[in-house]
Amino acid sequence: MPKPELLETFPTPVEAPFVVEHVAEEFTSVCPKTGHPDFGVVTLRFVPRPPSKGGTCVELKSLKLYFQSFRNEGIFYEAVTNRIRDDLAACMNPEWMLVKTDWTGRGGIRSTIRAMHRTVPERWQD
Amino acid sequence: MPKPELLETFPTPVEAPFVVEHVAEEFTSVCPKTGHPDFGVVTLRFVPRPPSKGGTCVELKSLKLYFQSFRNEGIFYEAVTNRIRDDLAACMNPEWMLVKTDWTGRGGIRSTIRAMHRTVPERWQD
Amino acid sequence: MPKPELLETFPTPVEAPFVVEHVAEEFTSVCPKTGHPDFGVVTLRFVPRPPSKGGTCVELKSLKLYFQSFRNEGIFYEAVTNRIRDDLAACMNPEWMLVKTDWTGRGGIRSTIRAMHRTVPERWQD
Amino acid sequence: MPKPELLETFPTPVEAPFVVEHVAEEFTSVCPKTGHPDFGVVTLRFVPRPPSKGGTCVELKSLKLYFQSFRNEGIFYEAVTNRIRDDLAACMNPEWMLVKTDWTGRGGIRSTIRAMHRTVPERWQD
Amino acid sequence: MPKPELLETFPTPVEAPFVVEHVAEEFTSVCPKTGHPDFGVVTLRFVPRPPSKGGTCVELKSLKLYFQSFRNEGIFYEAVTNRIRDDLAACMNPEWMLVKTDWTGRGGIRSTIRAMHRTVPERWQD
Amino acid sequence: MPKPELLETFPTPVEAPFVVEHVAEEFTSVCPKTGHPDFGVVTLRFVPRPPSKGGTCVELKSLKLYFQSFRNEGIFYEAVTNRIRDDLAACMNPEWMLVKTDWTGRGGIRSTIRAMHRTVPERWQD
Amino acid sequence: MPKPELLETFPTPVEAPFVVEHVAEEFTSVCPKTGHPDFGVVTLRFVPRPPSKGGTCVELKSLKLYFQSFRNEGIFYEAVTNRIRDDLAACMNPEWMLVKTDWTGRGGIRSTIRAMHRTVPERWQD
Amino acid sequence: MPKPELLETFPTPVEAPFVVEHVAEEFTSVCPKTGHPDFGVVTLRFVPRPPSKGGTCVELKSLKLYFQSFRNEGIFYEAVTNRIRDDLAACMNPEWMLVKTDWTGRGGIRSTIRAMHRTVPERWQD
Amino acid sequence: MPKPELLETFPTPVEAPFVVEHVAEEFTSVCPKTGHPDFGVVTLRFVPRPPSKGGTCVELKSLKLYFQSFRNEGIFYEAVTNRIRDDLAACMNPEWMLVKTDWTGRGGIRSTIRAMHRTVPERWQD
Amino acid sequence: MPKPELLETFPTPVEAPFVVEHVAEEFTSVCPKTGHPDFGVVTLRFVPRPPSKGGTCVELKSLKLYFQSFRNEGIFYEAVTNRIRDDLAACMNPEWMLVKTDWTGRGGIRSTIRAMHRTVPERWQD
Repeated sequence: MPKPELLETFPTPVEAPFVVEHVAEEFTSVCPKTGHPDFGVVTLRFVPRPPSKGGTCVELKSLKLYFQSFRNEGIFYEAVTNRIRDDLAACMNPEWMLVKTDWTGRGGIRSTIRAMHRTVPERWQD
Repeated sequence: MPKPELLETFPTPVEAPFVVEHVAEEFTSVCPKTGHPDFGVVTLRFVPRPPSKGGTCVELKSLKLYFQSFRNEGIFYEAVTNRIRDDLAACMNPEWMLVKTDWTGRGGIRSTIRAMHRTVPERWQD
Repeated sequence: MPKPELLETFPTPVEAPFVVEHVAEEFTSVCPKTGHPDFGVVTLRFVPRPPSKGGTCVELKSLKLYFQSFRNEGIFYEAVTNRIRDDLAACMNPEWMLVKTDWTGRGGIRSTIRAMHRTVPERWQD
Repeated sequence: MPKPELLETFPTPVEAPFVVEHVAEEFTSVCPKTGHPDFGVVTLRFVPRPPSKGGTCVELKSLKLYFQSFRNEGIFYEAVTNRIRDDLAACMNPEWMLVKTDWTGRGGIRSTIRAMHRTVPERWQD
Repeated sequence: MPKPELLETFPTPVEAPFVVEHVAEEFTSVCPKTGHPDFGVVTLRFVPRPPSKGGTCVELKSLKLYFQSFRNEGIFYEAVTNRIRDDLAACMNPEWMLVKTDWTGRGGIRSTIRAMHRTVPERWQD
Repeated sequence: MPKPELLETFPTPVEAPFVVEHVAEEFTSVCPKTGHPDFGVVTLRFVPRPPSKGGTCVELKSLKLYFQSFRNEGIFYEAVTNRIRDDLAACMNPEWMLVKTDWTGRGGIRSTIRAMHRTVPERWQD
Repeated sequence: MPKPELLETFPTPVEAPFVVEHVAEEFTSVCPKTGHPDFGVVTLRFVPRPPSKGGTCVELKSLKLYFQSFRNEGIFYEAVTNRIRDDLAACMNPEWMLVKTDWTGRGGIRSTIRAMHRTVPERWQD
Repeated sequence: MPKPELLETFPTPVEAPFVVEHVAEEFTSVCPKTGHPDFGVVTLRFVPRPPSKGGTCVELKSLKLYFQSFRNEGIFYEAVTNRIRDDLAACMNPEWMLVKTDWTGRGGIRSTIRAMHRTVPERWQD
Repeated sequence: MPKPELLETFPTPVEAPFVVEHVAEEFTSVCPKTGHPDFGVVTLRFVPRPPSKGGTCVELKSLKLYFQSFRNEGIFYEAVTNRIRDDLAACMNPEWMLVKTDWTGRGGIRSTIRAMHRTVPERWQD
Repeated sequence: MPKPELLETFPTPVEAPFVVEHVAEEFTSVCPKTGHPDFGVVTLRFVPRPPSKGGTCVELKSLKLYFQSFRNEGIFYEAVTNRIRDDLAACMNPEWMLVKTDWTGRGGIRSTIRAMHRTVPERWQD
């Protein structure tokens, strides 16, 4: 079961805005329809809130453990993507955030899902 | 411990503006959470102040030694990136500056952080 | 010692504007700090003045000899780049000119410097 | 000696505009300074005049022979490029034309020259 | 827990020898030391026994399910490789077989393990 | 149903031996277990018998139609490969022949099967 | 109709053996079954007889015209390959010769045919 | 200081021989001459002893920690390579072992060192 | 006209054998049949005689001028290759020598010619 | 002037043989004929003598300084290669050694020279 309670944060270190990108290349969950495992790449991109507004950044090892908590979860691609967006938005409340998932394929079809939190600038949407 | 006092500068050689890019491909520090080493590439891009305004450029060997001073420092990716931005902005006071760090991955997740000083023109933000 | 007096020019052959690009792949000078040799690629891009305004183009063999005159000169990357820009602007007085230097790396850091003369159109700045 | 009299044309076959590109990969002439041979690639790009305005297109075998007439000519890169532009503009009078020459290098320097006839649309200038 | 009982076979279709190669690109198990997931590629190469000797081939969907049964198993790379070799040798009894596993890396170290059953010809060992 | 009766041949045109290779990149059949389509590449390599021994070569259009006759057939990879080997050996009786099939993957597993007729020289087995 | 009478030769220029390779990338003939055009690459490799034995080499322009004579000929791949081998062996009588044809595909199948004259050394058979 | 006492092993899981390869892409130590950090890739390849002879395999996390213990050690490339060979041979006593180090370059020179334990088969020496 | 008298040599600098390779990428001559220019790459590979036997090496600038002397010569590919072999063998008398010419194509046919002097070891013939 | 006295060595660290390779990518000297700079890559490959026979390895920084001492030396490619071989053989007396130089080209000709000390095994000669 996805465990957002695993996510830890630390205070955004500086007031000036900066862009963070994390790419998890070994994400796996389970297809709720067939019970077979799914494999994908999760890209997370965001500008954290500044510390004066209580902004935080997600800590990387906790992010890894959170992603691992999907390992045996039966869940659709679309739900994975939005669930990650919601859990991370809730714990970090960033200025904006993009969650993109690229799935390596099942039955000859590969998929990409993009979910956004607030307004992601055009140049960071790819 | 990062040692900004290692940074040396020399006067910007000419009045006309020019763009400088330094890419350090062998940066390493330590993860404050796990104690394991982190490896990354640091890209520095800036336009120095002109000499008539007391502008300076960072000297390359001193920059290398400054980067080496992070070797045994326990520090988050985000803090490394902003610390470098702050230290270099303080010693050079450039017209604008981008600091980008690309980390080779830990636990299957690779990361990129971008921090900026003043307004970095769109075409130099990549 | 850089010898701009080696530079020879010939009259711009036609009135219509045209764009010239010379790429010298075997440039070498010496680091003034460490005494070790530096190696780089110098890209020169310009539109010459038309002959009706006394415009000239730099002759290629003389350009090679001029570049060779840096061989044993102790000089920073930034100064090399601006010096070439100044020497060539003085001898050719082009409509505009870009001088870009790409250095193969010293102590794990590789660098790129761009200097411009007059307004270089955006599409020729790369 | 370049022989523009070798160039033959045929009437533009249709009224609607179209873009023509010819790339000659085995162009050679002689350096007027050193007497050594130069080797390059000549790219010709143009929109011919429509037949209602007496427009013509250059015939390909005659173009090859014309290019071969430079084989033993001592002539600078810049002059080659502009000479081809002028000769072809004179015989075809196209709507617009780009002549680009890429030279394989002499003394470690490789060069590219672009000459234009009338206004070449931005997207066709590369 | 690895479930060799999931493996199904069908009789080798012909008497003449032939070489089979299956490459499973999405294998995952768990590190028994750290509890973190491992990701790898499993290559299986063999010549089946002929039907006159009771030879069989592994059925592909059952192979996939067998590989999936490692998903939550804490097991070393070396043991995975040898376990697959043993389970498949037991169910198929092939003329020869190579099992190769390529692991994508953990803590900056990537690994390859090769295990063989009977004598694998030199040219099939890579 | 595979229809070997579709295969047509023509007499080997000359007495001297020669090597023929046909690669069919768009082969498809059906998995007998799951009912899903399989996609693969079939490589056929052989030396035909000389005409003095009644040798023949398979005609290419008939080969295409024969391959198409597998389209709705439920059949394992191994059986496809050996069936093609047997059907072609029966209709051509070549000096030697290799049939190789490369399957693009099903459930994350891709496969290659090689079947031979008589002794295929080592250098032609890849 | 293939016209071997178009082939011209010139005396082998020296006594010492040497290896010649000609690759014709724009060969075309017609499928005798379907009437559709075939496109292929013809590779010719040989050691000519020495002049003391009356050896000759095929002249390149005549070879081109000979290849062009297949343009409207309905002829199988295998027959093309052997016909070229026979015609060239007859006109040059080389020490050895390889003729290889690579066909770009018809109905999703691409083919390669190799024919030899006398004993082609192993290293020249590819 | 290199700490071979960090190395842990587990019993070789099966009697049959198998080949293990570990590639550590983020190795770093310090040059004893200049004090500057060195960066390299360490490749370890071996066949473990069988369990009947008390054979063991190195455990991967302990290997990572052992490699990290070189981080601040001043030591030549050649000594690093041989030290790793000796420490691992002492703790595992494998049938044979290759240790290869590839260093990314210092002062424009990149290096590769190969050390072996017992007789490494030719095909595993690269 | 090819001018072997342009070739200059210098004494082989040491007694121990060594292998020399020169690759001239801008060779041009003229087709004796059509009068059109030919373009090719000339590769020269040899072991010079030792100085104790009066051995010499060809000087590089003189080699360039010698190659340029073919510029307006009407001569077949085969004759160029053998002529270069003969001229260089006469002036250097090497232990062995390979001359390979790769021609970029005429009428859709590209060619490669190899000529040898004495016995060229197998591994140097490519 | 080449300064072999710059070369420093350290005792071979272990008795067991190992293979060392150093690749210097920024070598430059001067052509004694034209006075123009030459640029090349120097590859050094050797097995050092064991310490029981007084064996030593060349120290890397001293090797760099030794290579830099050729910077303004007028010397042929062949002499550079053999000089390096002789100087390094004299200071290290290795079991065997290969020195290979790859030159980037002058007047359209690029060159490679290989010199050996004692018997270099075939597989290390490339």
